[in-house]
Amino acid sequence: MSKEKAPRRPRAETPKGFRDYFGAEVTERKAMLDAIAEVYQLHGFEALETSAVETVEALGKFLPDVDRPNEGVFAWQEEEKDWLALRYDLTAPLARVAAQYRNDLPTPYRRYAMGPVWRNEKPGPGRFRQFYQCDADTVGAPSVAADAEICAMLANALERVGIPRGDYLIKVNNRKVLNGVMEAAGVLDPSDPEKFAHERGIVLRAIDKIDRLGDAGVRALLGEGRKDESGDYTKGAGLSVAQAEVVMGFMAAKREDGAATLAALRDLVASSAIGLEGVQELETIASLLDAQGFGPDRIVIDPSVVRGLGYYTGPVFEAELTFEILDEKGNKRQFGSVAGGGRYDDLVKRFTGQAVPATGVSIGVDRLLAALRAKGRVGAEAPGPVVVTVMDRDRMAEYFAMAADLRNAGIRAEVYLGNPKQFGNQLKYADKRASPVAVIQGTDEAARGVVVLKDLILGARIAQSATLEEWKDRPAQVEIPRDDLVQAVRQMLEG
Amino acid sequence: MSKEKAPRRPRAETPKGFRDYFGAEVTERKAMLDAIAEVYQLHGFEALETSAVETVEALGKFLPDVDRPNEGVFAWQEEEKDWLALRYDLTAPLARVAAQYRNDLPTPYRRYAMGPVWRNEKPGPGRFRQFYQCDADTVGAPSVAADAEICAMLANALERVGIPRGDYLIKVNNRKVLNGVMEAAGVLDPSDPEKFAHERGIVLRAIDKIDRLGDAGVRALLGEGRKDESGDYTKGAGLSVAQAEVVMGFMAAKREDGAATLAALRDLVASSAIGLEGVQELETIASLLDAQGFGPDRIVIDPSVVRGLGYYTGPVFEAELTFEILDEKGNKRQFGSVAGGGRYDDLVKRFTGQAVPATGVSIGVDRLLAALRAKGRVGAEAPGPVVVTVMDRDRMAEYFAMAADLRNAGIRAEVYLGNPKQFGNQLKYADKRASPVAVIQGTDEAARGVVVLKDLILGARIAQSATLEEWKDRPAQVEIPRDDLVQAVRQMLEG
Repeated sequence: MSKEKAPRRPRAETPKGFRDYFGAEVTERKAMLDAIAEVYQLHGFEALETSAVETVEALGKFLPDVDRPNEGVFAWQEEEKDWLALRYDLTAPLARVAAQYRNDLPTPYRRYAMGPVWRNEKPGPGRFRQFYQCDADTVGAPSVAADAEICAMLANALERVGIPRGDYLIKVNNRKVLNGVMEAAGVLDPSDPEKFAHERGIVLRAIDKIDRLGDAGVRALLGEGRKDESGDYTKGAGLSVAQAEVVMGFMAAKREDGAATLAALRDLVASSAIGLEGVQELETIASLLDAQGFGPDRIVIDPSVVRGLGYYTGPVFEAELTFEILDEKGNKRQFGSVAGGGRYDDLVKRFTGQAVPATGVSIGVDRLLAALRAKGRVGAEAPGPVVVTVMDRDRMAEYFAMAADLRNAGIRAEVYLGNPKQFGNQLKYADKRASPVAVIQGTDEAARGVVVLKDLILGARIAQSATLEEWKDRPAQVEIPRDDLVQAVRQMLEG
Repeated sequence: MSKEKAPRRPRAETPKGFRDYFGAEVTERKAMLDAIAEVYQLHGFEALETSAVETVEALGKFLPDVDRPNEGVFAWQEEEKDWLALRYDLTAPLARVAAQYRNDLPTPYRRYAMGPVWRNEKPGPGRFRQFYQCDADTVGAPSVAADAEICAMLANALERVGIPRGDYLIKVNNRKVLNGVMEAAGVLDPSDPEKFAHERGIVLRAIDKIDRLGDAGVRALLGEGRKDESGDYTKGAGLSVAQAEVVMGFMAAKREDGAATLAALRDLVASSAIGLEGVQELETIASLLDAQGFGPDRIVIDPSVVRGLGYYTGPVFEAELTFEILDEKGNKRQFGSVAGGGRYDDLVKRFTGQAVPATGVSIGVDRLLAALRAKGRVGAEAPGPVVVTVMDRDRMAEYFAMAADLRNAGIRAEVYLGNPKQFGNQLKYADKRASPVAVIQGTDEAARGVVVLKDLILGARIAQSATLEEWKDRPAQVEIPRDDLVQAVRQMLEG
């Protein structure tokens, strides 16, 4: 006799690299994004929401360091039609929008966008394949005044969500200066920018790793290459020692103040027109910001910032949080980068053939939220709802009416809707919900027109305390007239 | 000589069936969802955000009426691993979450979720393949008190966003009653519910189309089948005329009040235990709602509502907007359904093998927003930012300082960042941005420490008006001291 096979049940699991967000994880992020949106709105930026799905050709291939053959995106083919993919950032869709609606949008077009993006990368601890970005960009403004505005607005946004002055620093650099340095070092021929794009890419990514690899590691990547701890070998940019020295000198060109840094950069790129143009742009940005009160305690020129993405063409910037946190090993370290961006004058051109200047910033939402949590700016446990317990199944309507009365007074409240047989389970439920107050009314109390309120916060404190002495004047449980329900609960909530 | 081929440019287009949302389209939807979330929170519901991507097996196959072989989802296979797909609703992910975290979540678990879902359907006018849903569900509450709570909360949510009492009606029915009716008609054998699932599905979908097809159309679908206007033939459920008559009688069982409707239903299902259980549940729901003041002017028992989805097992509900709008042809018609839901006690069981009762509602976000727009509740054009124009490129810092002063006073403001050469373009830009005020300061004004404010709203009114008479006391342009900028702009904004 063959035994019948039980039908296989689906696994109740998120796909690898994806996760769920519960309660405060959702509402705290939302509150942070709302605050940032308010700042962006105030600066004249308009909301834009594109769909999660784009054609693969519209998205283009701009992801750095991807470890998958399909360029790091989730993609699939429509029945004998286009290849579609989930967006990997909010900039590629903006470039598509700027091209698609170029005759209808105002010029310049300032827009902000917030939402999830997807990366088809190997998931790892704390590394997810869906995460939030929060971007603000200005399309159609050629002047670096637009870059300066983005930097100033980023500072305002960080302060608005609770990162105080002194706890962050926005570092500004310029790709044109880097190009000038490479020209001066004989690495780059400015008359054929395409030709050296690949080498320049390696140089960019090497510099971008300075925090992680240190001087020697970056020098190795600028030269022949580098073997990492796992034994994997990364090919280098093939610069000579003298050339690498020039690039390293550029990264270390930060001086005691902005004017001195600019002078040092001017020396480094002396022979390069594009380099001098870049230094001039940095000078303009610095003076615009300075005039608005954004001094070097908030926004500073720092040549060590280059950003990894290939598409930047001018100013680049990065917001770092400068306070220390304990890492997984218990060591102190700076919190690090929470936002970055720059000017990308060629992205819209992909579609239209016409150059459209653009600049913008992207905030790493999860990292910024983690920073706010580390600083205690969010995460104070929000109280749960008042729980109206069920002593008598036939009187559900009255329990619902109590909850409604509380809600009408703006107090979060719910009726217990599990199996009411064991009253202990109802109190356990209230505890799990972090409920501040339980409302209790059995048949006897109903007959007398009263309800019992249990102060669960006070109850928990009494349970923890060695002596009842200090609580003796505050009973954790009171009987009150039903008509006084709202007032008595409110009083209990206010402690 | 062969001509070099120009590189093909990517098309700047959203994929078919997807769209972009600009400015107020984003912020108005957000404001509506925020208001609904507030109501849900107040009722003790907690936020949940799952990722857009689930395994295909976790999602299951529950979409009705799909016209694609891959069951209406966007799906792709991981390299030699799981098939993944974009979620098609927020209920399937909730069922997965309820199973995955069953030991950690409170019982019952009340949660709300808002976000986009994706359907791989043929796009059509006004029919998109990504759209928002806004759900609230209670998992683990066996009592229909949970269903009643969902209906009451839905009414509260509709009123909160601006649908007044009298403009909506929540209709409640029960699948158990329908099953009882089918049992009484000899269509369904309650001892083998699987066997007739297919036929029942056809009956459900036929009834669900009563508004569109009318009596005769539904009768045809209950019987042999129906040919539609395009000539396409839909196979029917194969009921006899007498059986179809019973089902049609069920749909028409609504009487002048709830008690009479319940009595009519009780007659129809007289011989069916499951049917009588369903009527009893409806009676409980009605009395719970009645006691809380949700009378038949807001929530009513209506047997014509069945909902199309196959997974409902008990009460089902639908919110209809009862006011009239003009359709595309200029004919008056009722606005119709904006939300629906019901009890689905078997969805979590798919994963765990254990029955977990669950009920919930999903609001059609785009339809509700369209209704609010039709009623003039949203969509009043929000004023754009004050635009600080650029008369003198060397004085950008001062223009930025003016914008900052305005923002610090809470006034939305921006500096013009396009090419400032033609002043006319700056005013055209301000017009496109719906800017209320333009700030102008040339070299001469700067030297005198003044700025000029142009009242663009008043200016537009004057331009429209035949006579200047009525405006003569209110100049559309004033010169004021630079130091009075904020105060003068505010005065102009307040009209």
